Amino acid sequence: MVEVTEDLADEILARGPSRDASLPPQGGVELKTSGAMAPEREGESKADGPRIEVVLVVSDVPEAYALKRARLAGIRAVVVSPRDFSTREEHDLALTALLCEAEADLVVLAGYMRLVSPAVLQAFPNRIINLHPALLPSFPGTTAIADALRYGVKVTGVTVHFVDEGMDTGPIIAQEAVRVEEGDSEETLAARIHAVEHRLLPQVIRLIAAGRVRPPLPGSRVVQVH
Amino acid sequence: MVEVTEDLADEILARGPSRDASLPPQGGVELKTSGAMAPEREGESKADGPRIEVVLVVSDVPEAYALKRARLAGIRAVVVSPRDFSTREEHDLALTALLCEAEADLVVLAGYMRLVSPAVLQAFPNRIINLHPALLPSFPGTTAIADALRYGVKVTGVTVHFVDEGMDTGPIIAQEAVRVEEGDSEETLAARIHAVEHRLLPQVIRLIAAGRVRPPLPGSRVVQVH
Repeated sequence: MVEVTEDLADEILARGPSRDASLPPQGGVELKTSGAMAPEREGESKADGPRIEVVLVVSDVPEAYALKRARLAGIRAVVVSPRDFSTREEHDLALTALLCEAEADLVVLAGYMRLVSPAVLQAFPNRIINLHPALLPSFPGTTAIADALRYGVKVTGVTVHFVDEGMDTGPIIAQEAVRVEEGDSEETLAARIHAVEHRLLPQVIRLIAAGRVRPPLPGSRVVQVH
Repeated sequence: MVEVTEDLADEILARGPSRDASLPPQGGVELKTSGAMAPEREGESKADGPRIEVVLVVSDVPEAYALKRARLAGIRAVVVSPRDFSTREEHDLALTALLCEAEADLVVLAGYMRLVSPAVLQAFPNRIINLHPALLPSFPGTTAIADALRYGVKVTGVTVHFVDEGMDTGPIIAQEAVRVEEGDSEETLAARIHAVEHRLLPQVIRLIAAGRVRPPLPGSRVVQVH
């Protein structure tokens, strides 16, 4: 049993050498965390919130540091990369099987740079969330921080949202603003954005585990958090 | 000589009965304020900042309350509406002549729902600013607050930007975030956004008057504020 703490969030978010922004997107940060969460009702009234167990860490980058950290923490860590499969369908099947076998209640994407296939989405309806380093719908895609700087916004931020078929288009669960300061470089802005990411993602996971996040009703995009 | 105070900002932002959101955009809020600002260098060191004079208020809505308030404050107030001219060119010429005659250093759009013609833009390069009730580039256009609520964002805000040929696409001078609260209606969210607008717009006008806002260099969109 592993609690989601700030440390674990760092672990989930930890990114290896492939984090280098100069690498092409497909070689970039790709890391998927799956936490099987038992929202034990009697635990909710406790000050420390519901218990959360991280049952599996998946990455498509074999050298991702997150895999190493997961193993050090006693969490199963697996590489699933499309290049190891002859078809997209086989890859999706293997990924879905792995997540189902782990009995994951929630799949958390943190720096995962691939679109999630409909096959995987259907297996986890409203159970896959993603972390994005901008205030969506502004600056979707894999270069959000650089795009925001180039556009010249004075406020950007962090978004956690449910994943759908689109590129960063799913219903928004939580957002937090980050000011762009005069003279910010991509590095200095990214540092402040990542600090917010490391706080916001575990917060949202705890809210979901506590049953406090209601996915949108049909015909709506609005996520209710209570 | 009229100082730009919070009261005057309210005046600039005051909107008549045509503010009703149920009216179509072309009948909506349309109000243009032009402030001829003498950034008297010796005045900058004063605690109350540079002197700012509002020389003209223009609206294309004859019944706009801002016109009445301007007249009560002793400021020239004029209606310039495209429907009073047989061609777009004549309208643009009249508007440009009026602004030039008033020796306006800055043209402030607050709730002006029309695109500004290239003819007017060319007469006031980097001298026309607009106030927008969202964090651009998210939710451009005339229904920004409703659009943000419908999209389900958790953070929206206010933008002040230089005006270019596009719809809310010009370089951004200042932004401020506003949280969307659970249960917000368009009215409750608009009230909080307007409160920020009434503070941010005069702030930006004062910064420009003090020479602290540098328009983007060629090839860039980034506005420097120091």
